[in-house]
Amino acid sequence: MTKVIGFDADDTLWHNETHFQEMQRALAAIISGHTGETSPIDDHLMAVERRNLRKYGYGAKGFALSMIETALELTGQRVSGAEIARIIAMVHHFLERDIHVLDGAVETLSRLRDSHSLILITKGDEIEQQEKLVKSNLRSFFDKVYFVLEKDPDTYLSILRREEIDPSQFVMVGNSLRSDIQPVLAIGGRAILIPYEVTWKHEMVDLPADSPEAFATLNSIREVPAFLEDGDGGRR
Amino acid sequence: MTKVIGFDADDTLWHNETHFQEMQRALAAIISGHTGETSPIDDHLMAVERRNLRKYGYGAKGFALSMIETALELTGQRVSGAEIARIIAMVHHFLERDIHVLDGAVETLSRLRDSHSLILITKGDEIEQQEKLVKSNLRSFFDKVYFVLEKDPDTYLSILRREEIDPSQFVMVGNSLRSDIQPVLAIGGRAILIPYEVTWKHEMVDLPADSPEAFATLNSIREVPAFLEDGDGGRR
Repeated sequence: MTKVIGFDADDTLWHNETHFQEMQRALAAIISGHTGETSPIDDHLMAVERRNLRKYGYGAKGFALSMIETALELTGQRVSGAEIARIIAMVHHFLERDIHVLDGAVETLSRLRDSHSLILITKGDEIEQQEKLVKSNLRSFFDKVYFVLEKDPDTYLSILRREEIDPSQFVMVGNSLRSDIQPVLAIGGRAILIPYEVTWKHEMVDLPADSPEAFATLNSIREVPAFLEDGDGGRR
Repeated sequence: MTKVIGFDADDTLWHNETHFQEMQRALAAIISGHTGETSPIDDHLMAVERRNLRKYGYGAKGFALSMIETALELTGQRVSGAEIARIIAMVHHFLERDIHVLDGAVETLSRLRDSHSLILITKGDEIEQQEKLVKSNLRSFFDKVYFVLEKDPDTYLSILRREEIDPSQFVMVGNSLRSDIQPVLAIGGRAILIPYEVTWKHEMVDLPADSPEAFATLNSIREVPAFLEDGDGGRR
């Protein structure tokens, strides 16, 4: 019986990745102005982000530096000061933006909180995630909020231990197979995948052969309450 | 009677600010190459950091972006790609550096931990502070580690509440009047200031008139055990 529902934040409760991809397109335009190539820069940026991930962690500041490094490397350092300033301005704009909560999130959270204990489990730069949570006005729906550096099985285990929840009583809801689904299944919990319109390449993984059995995939957060009532799922 | 001793990390247990000031001098050299001026850039950089603090928080990534913004602004965007690359390279070097633990820290911590419960309370980017703590090999001395976004009275209160410590049983040791001393005194705890060779301007505050009575100032972390035994100070 599900007692506690964990929710991912970025791209599960509010839009996030779309903004990163917009910045990525603007960066590509700046770079192609020097290289003439229109070939996407995604692979290089991705490699730079990977290279920096252990040092930078997740978040917009590390992304800003990785974009600048990518621009410098792909243009042979010919990218101009004005263009660097535009890259940084994009990131400021991103950090100052309003948070757009996904359709149905408020109604769903307010309904689920009557029957379950809700915890938010989000990865990334704490000061940025804090700020998004405040702007989203969703804080009050959650009994607990965890800002974590990585979403691996150990992270989930230590949260459940601290909350004194048995994995069998826990369902995680998120948009990332890698961060929200697989590690939770690995510790004996259940998980509901709600794919977002776009997925960050870092979060892409191959579906294990048996996964269609192992977790549920829903089209919208709106479907979560009915799904849990209907046999208290997490499985199909 | 002191039961718990809180320790700040940067510039209290290991060297940190000196590296930031080195980067700042290198940035000044890059900028004066364009402006011809040798006047220090510190005030402008400081203003940029202040402007960005709520968005960036503390840490090297935000500092990197603030250095780049300062270079762009003071050179009228004439700073070159190669120079931006040098600024970013400095920050990578900083993030990859070895941690130099301050003289006497290991001996002092290993002595104090026999008689007191030790907790580390550090501000800043969590992934960076985690990394420094691992590299410092000091983790095992502490019963608890807290990474906090700000060191204000509420932060200390919530830590003491969580640890079930009365402020009268708590002494904080650190190099910053603003972050380690004043907020702890404000909640009825005691504090020991150990000035570091350099102080980050953000951490500088005017000494309240009565403060000479209110907290102790020691020259070295080595003096802490004797000071606590001698009348279990925190006051002089």
